[in-house]
Amino acid sequence: MSHSAVTPTPILKDELDIVIPTIRNLDFLEMWRPFFQPYHLIIVQDGDPSKTINVPEGFDYELYNRNDINRILGPKASCISFKDSACRCFGYMVSKKKYIYTIDDDCFVAKNPSGEDINALQQHIKNLLSPSTPYFFNTLYDPYRDGADFVRGYPFSLREGIPTAVSHGLWLNIPDYDAPTQLVKPLERNTSISPMLFLRYVDAVMTIPKGTLFPMCGMNLAFNRELIGPAMYFGLMGDGQPIGRYDDMWAGWCIKVICDHLGLGVKTGLPYIWHSKASNPFVNLKKEYKGIYWQEELIPFFQSVSLPKDCTSVQKCYLELSKQVKAKLGKVDEYFNKLADAMVTWIEAWDELNPGN
Amino acid sequence: MSHSAVTPTPILKDELDIVIPTIRNLDFLEMWRPFFQPYHLIIVQDGDPSKTINVPEGFDYELYNRNDINRILGPKASCISFKDSACRCFGYMVSKKKYIYTIDDDCFVAKNPSGEDINALQQHIKNLLSPSTPYFFNTLYDPYRDGADFVRGYPFSLREGIPTAVSHGLWLNIPDYDAPTQLVKPLERNTSISPMLFLRYVDAVMTIPKGTLFPMCGMNLAFNRELIGPAMYFGLMGDGQPIGRYDDMWAGWCIKVICDHLGLGVKTGLPYIWHSKASNPFVNLKKEYKGIYWQEELIPFFQSVSLPKDCTSVQKCYLELSKQVKAKLGKVDEYFNKLADAMVTWIEAWDELNPGN
Repeated sequence: MSHSAVTPTPILKDELDIVIPTIRNLDFLEMWRPFFQPYHLIIVQDGDPSKTINVPEGFDYELYNRNDINRILGPKASCISFKDSACRCFGYMVSKKKYIYTIDDDCFVAKNPSGEDINALQQHIKNLLSPSTPYFFNTLYDPYRDGADFVRGYPFSLREGIPTAVSHGLWLNIPDYDAPTQLVKPLERNTSISPMLFLRYVDAVMTIPKGTLFPMCGMNLAFNRELIGPAMYFGLMGDGQPIGRYDDMWAGWCIKVICDHLGLGVKTGLPYIWHSKASNPFVNLKKEYKGIYWQEELIPFFQSVSLPKDCTSVQKCYLELSKQVKAKLGKVDEYFNKLADAMVTWIEAWDELNPGN
Repeated sequence: MSHSAVTPTPILKDELDIVIPTIRNLDFLEMWRPFFQPYHLIIVQDGDPSKTINVPEGFDYELYNRNDINRILGPKASCISFKDSACRCFGYMVSKKKYIYTIDDDCFVAKNPSGEDINALQQHIKNLLSPSTPYFFNTLYDPYRDGADFVRGYPFSLREGIPTAVSHGLWLNIPDYDAPTQLVKPLERNTSISPMLFLRYVDAVMTIPKGTLFPMCGMNLAFNRELIGPAMYFGLMGDGQPIGRYDDMWAGWCIKVICDHLGLGVKTGLPYIWHSKASNPFVNLKKEYKGIYWQEELIPFFQSVSLPKDCTSVQKCYLELSKQVKAKLGKVDEYFNKLADAMVTWIEAWDELNPGN
């Protein structure tokens, strides 16, 4: 391939928003400049709204703080978490684009084994624009990647695949562990250790099979807003809530059962980002401990969720799910009644901001 | 790690047999000598029994030709395919070991990206000796590998895993494609092209989730014979049969539904072997075409198979499966009635050669 002096038009430039939740200056964007600058950013400022967040020059962005959220959503703002990165889902709601990429502000550009910078966004777009194959496992991973294909024995009727709704990217350097795992693996908190010592670069993208749940991390995540947006609710976390660090997990369980129901695909694997710092395991433990306990009941619940046939839109699926959450998880803890109500509020707010969808 | 002049004892030396189906001299073993020589080989000679197969010096082996199979099994020899590598499953039956590794005679030692020879057998043993996690997806792949773990959000109650019954390895150089795919990708038949051009080295092992079928290739496969052996029947293929090249696929569908039922795991990914030559796509098309057609009915059948609770052993599961094959696939083609009978014969022969199991 020849290199051209003309910069190619970034793919989906006018169809994708980058959503970033933050409490600090966004210096991390400097490193992403070559990849992100052509895109529009939606910054959701968490915490104290009087604080000014600096955004490096040259980026095209809109920024919402808590006052903006309250003003735009009114009483429905109650469904958006405060003092938790779960607030990012407000950005999904106000976007008018077809695709969303969301990334944490402690994530940097990773390098592939050849030492080249990884354009994470480009890989996510590739994942989203190629089909998924959740109904049968392809042992050579994503059959739509260059040089790959379906192996012998893969049914031909399934080779068209289905639309991909979600692309879940991974991390190098600091893995996404829960607090107990962080605590028992103190070495892996040491960021001075050589990169990729603990995390393997696995050169693969794959579809998560139908009927299988996964732990979705919100650190490096892209999705098709038109296909699955209204289910990407990150729940009630942080300030005033009994739980934290389960926002993306909650969204992951919800989107997976809805994707399975609606015939949409979820991919995981590439791209990697460089996760720069491990959060404090003791703080995390406090945030997580109810989640760790509750998830033992939540997983069986989501594994057995069945959505009726007349749930033909994401909204209908999500409202049905909220009913089942109330009916079956309300007895686990009062929190789930509140969460179920917030799920309904979220859909109402979504539809208000996105009329005609 | 320090290198020692003392050769370490090969793992599971006395608990694993290597099964090789062949029609030619086994010169390929020369390359495998450092890895295979400590183990016992079971060679199943396919085709003309009067032909002499040369085995390189220094290997410990037993060899069975068609006359041996007929003598040992008597009328039950009808369940063992002739003129097809499906005959390899006779080796699984006569083995007295706990583990089996089976490999094709056109498979050589592959190199990892660092240029080191891959000890495929050692990786298979690692896969078989560590648990599987089919009930929830771990986004960082096999959590039991060195340096890996369960990610945040993985339920703690599922972190013990379940026993691994099958380890499915992959291939570099020539991919395992069906005839139509071979035909439309003629470049990938060119073995003179630089290695790994078409097949990525993906540094991962993963559990295939519960409820998901996969295309199991018999080229580079290991399993725990005690856990799943009686289900590793490679069916009726080749001479006198209307179908070929579906022997391993058939076994793969059967073992997966039985593993799912019995709570056993199936892993895929590492290790890679070097697959040296592509078979003739025109010959393959002739062998495969009924399989390609039939599999569109076979996959839904296996996806919906349900085994009753009283099927508590592999044998019971397999006999039940044979009944369902006859009842539901007999109408697809008369061949499946014959195959269902052969499945029963296979179990009878297995139990005869393996009394008290």
